[in-house]
Amino acid sequence: MSDRISDIRRLFPILDQRVNGRPLVYLDHAATAQKPTPVVEAVRRYYEWDNANVHRSGHTLGQRATDAYETVRAQVARFVGAGSERDIVFTRGVTSAINLVATGYARAKLGAGDDIVVSAMEHHGNLLPWQQAAKATGATLSYIPLQPDGTFTLEDAEETITSRTKLVAVSHVSNVLGVANPVRELAAIARRVGAVVFVDGAQAVSHMPVDVRELDCDFYAFSGHKMYGPTGIGVLYGRREQLERIEPVEYGGQMIDRVGLRDSTWREAPWTFEAGTPNVAGAVGLGAAIDFLERIGRDAVAEHDRKLTRYATERLKEIDGLTIYGPEVDRWGLVTFNLARIHPHDVSSVLDVYGVAIRAGHHCCSPLMDHFGTSATARASFGLYNTEEDVDRLVEALLHTKRVFGE
Amino acid sequence: MSDRISDIRRLFPILDQRVNGRPLVYLDHAATAQKPTPVVEAVRRYYEWDNANVHRSGHTLGQRATDAYETVRAQVARFVGAGSERDIVFTRGVTSAINLVATGYARAKLGAGDDIVVSAMEHHGNLLPWQQAAKATGATLSYIPLQPDGTFTLEDAEETITSRTKLVAVSHVSNVLGVANPVRELAAIARRVGAVVFVDGAQAVSHMPVDVRELDCDFYAFSGHKMYGPTGIGVLYGRREQLERIEPVEYGGQMIDRVGLRDSTWREAPWTFEAGTPNVAGAVGLGAAIDFLERIGRDAVAEHDRKLTRYATERLKEIDGLTIYGPEVDRWGLVTFNLARIHPHDVSSVLDVYGVAIRAGHHCCSPLMDHFGTSATARASFGLYNTEEDVDRLVEALLHTKRVFGE
Repeated sequence: MSDRISDIRRLFPILDQRVNGRPLVYLDHAATAQKPTPVVEAVRRYYEWDNANVHRSGHTLGQRATDAYETVRAQVARFVGAGSERDIVFTRGVTSAINLVATGYARAKLGAGDDIVVSAMEHHGNLLPWQQAAKATGATLSYIPLQPDGTFTLEDAEETITSRTKLVAVSHVSNVLGVANPVRELAAIARRVGAVVFVDGAQAVSHMPVDVRELDCDFYAFSGHKMYGPTGIGVLYGRREQLERIEPVEYGGQMIDRVGLRDSTWREAPWTFEAGTPNVAGAVGLGAAIDFLERIGRDAVAEHDRKLTRYATERLKEIDGLTIYGPEVDRWGLVTFNLARIHPHDVSSVLDVYGVAIRAGHHCCSPLMDHFGTSATARASFGLYNTEEDVDRLVEALLHTKRVFGE
Repeated sequence: MSDRISDIRRLFPILDQRVNGRPLVYLDHAATAQKPTPVVEAVRRYYEWDNANVHRSGHTLGQRATDAYETVRAQVARFVGAGSERDIVFTRGVTSAINLVATGYARAKLGAGDDIVVSAMEHHGNLLPWQQAAKATGATLSYIPLQPDGTFTLEDAEETITSRTKLVAVSHVSNVLGVANPVRELAAIARRVGAVVFVDGAQAVSHMPVDVRELDCDFYAFSGHKMYGPTGIGVLYGRREQLERIEPVEYGGQMIDRVGLRDSTWREAPWTFEAGTPNVAGAVGLGAAIDFLERIGRDAVAEHDRKLTRYATERLKEIDGLTIYGPEVDRWGLVTFNLARIHPHDVSSVLDVYGVAIRAGHHCCSPLMDHFGTSATARASFGLYNTEEDVDRLVEALLHTKRVFGE
């Protein structure tokens, strides 16, 4: 694979630059992935050859644009193992996808006596929509409690999920721990009480093959920009009968069946949920990102990312005074840590001087930070374009940082 | 200007293609504008040099991406004459912007006894969000009635807007009539009863200079893709004190102040309304589209578009049996018509054979179609890249169409 990685890196011209005089080492993949040339070129080609509005204009460009857009919908369905392209809704991103279900299902259908279950490790994006839906409807919000290492057990999940539970929302891969949650087992528990299962796949899709029917979840959401695609495009997969239960959240052109002066009726899913002009170029770029991942092979991608994260974990453990958060299991593309008593923002700033880009902060994961008794951590995250040399540069820069702060 | 137009056309490589063997004449600008090379290049350059997530990562790329994104916010504020960049919210498009106010303000704040006023010429995007908000809250929805030519009078507006009116929503330029509504006068009437004024500027911003403070509206919304920018990005301008009255509609990362287990607090506007990762590349492209328009000069743009639309109207009038919808005044970039007894979809299909792209249908304007007693019309719409030769090609193709159908 390492030969191939140098070929793959050539597809990311952004990596070929110096930051503060040093070659850039981009280790912030979990915040957003860099985009390979085929993705950027697909967007350009769309604008320079096919661009038109979709589902409206019968002329040749309108047909080509519509075909391009709907072809990606079918491609996304295959990418996540959905039964039909009709199960795929395009959204602005993962956050919009989660809010769509939180508003169109939880707010519209739940009430006092109902319960929504989340894990206490969730990203704000997969926590606040449910929290606010609960608050608005009088439903309760229950948290699956966490072990000291930040993970949860299926026993605790089983205890938290009750006959009152109507929806269970959990991340596939935690954006702080990098650990894959036992979604399939959780879905089986939820299924027994008739609860709907929502999975936030934002941190999973760029690293591992995903099969929504194998996971047996009702909803699965992710963003294009974290899987080598453009910004402004995301996906909500929904099991057909569940999608049909959701009320539209945005109203406008192209989602209507009949419009009356006092009331109107809507098209069927997924188009009910795509009012107005969609991000057509974003969808085209997402299609190119899927092509990119599939050309490399999703198992090969998974192997590279897992192996590199393992290497990073081992190398980071060599640093005295460095604390890694999360359990001793395989991580998916990221390692979160703190370095002695140095504030992670300072770590990140010194690393930037060495050209190494990582993220520091609460990672939109306040409850998990509270659990760890810290306000912030540092996180290094990896994509296909990263190498062991990148990890070595990180370790070297962290050792420098320690010296700078006299730790 | 005509010398300059040939220079401008060179910035639109998409126009340099044959459709069904004839050079493409793109007259569907009102559905979506074509994108000039500087816009496409700005998106590419962003991905190949600056791409990172915004407002999260302190490293150099993160700072550059955040700067790029927030710089466009300030640029948009100047573009529409807003007092501050803090009055500008980035959305997925105009439809999302309208739904944001319809959900975060109308649904959250209105109730029985309140009234929302729209004109009967509104696009579904500026009708359905208000209609469904009224239905959900028990507020009423009133329509400013239309004259036979499809426009409304200020007298009728004054009669429709009462002390019960809490919000007036109207398009700046109708997507069917191409006529500019008297927004400023309407705002004065609304102001007298304390109603909020929402303007859908989707069809205005690419054609005319817009100054929201001169219009004296509370909200003004538009899409990037109709003004030479990328798909998937739009803008909501809101007067500060009105923006602050809106409840957030989507919850997630980057819009929070403090997150608790049971409830949370939010950042101030505009960031309250931008949960999750925004369409950063889309914003960058929108900035390039504004540069493009301002380099040509917005008065020059307005003059070209108005003059060309006037020429098109005159030429279309020469065709026997062709009916133009709307009044005999200056149109902004579009002419809507029917040709004898030929269905507009057939007109559009035959035109496509001649390489001429127009739109046929209800134009997401069912109430206006009902008003005209028709189910569909044809619409030719124009941008900066269109010339009198394009209009001549349209007229020639329409004459062919008549012969094909024996009219």
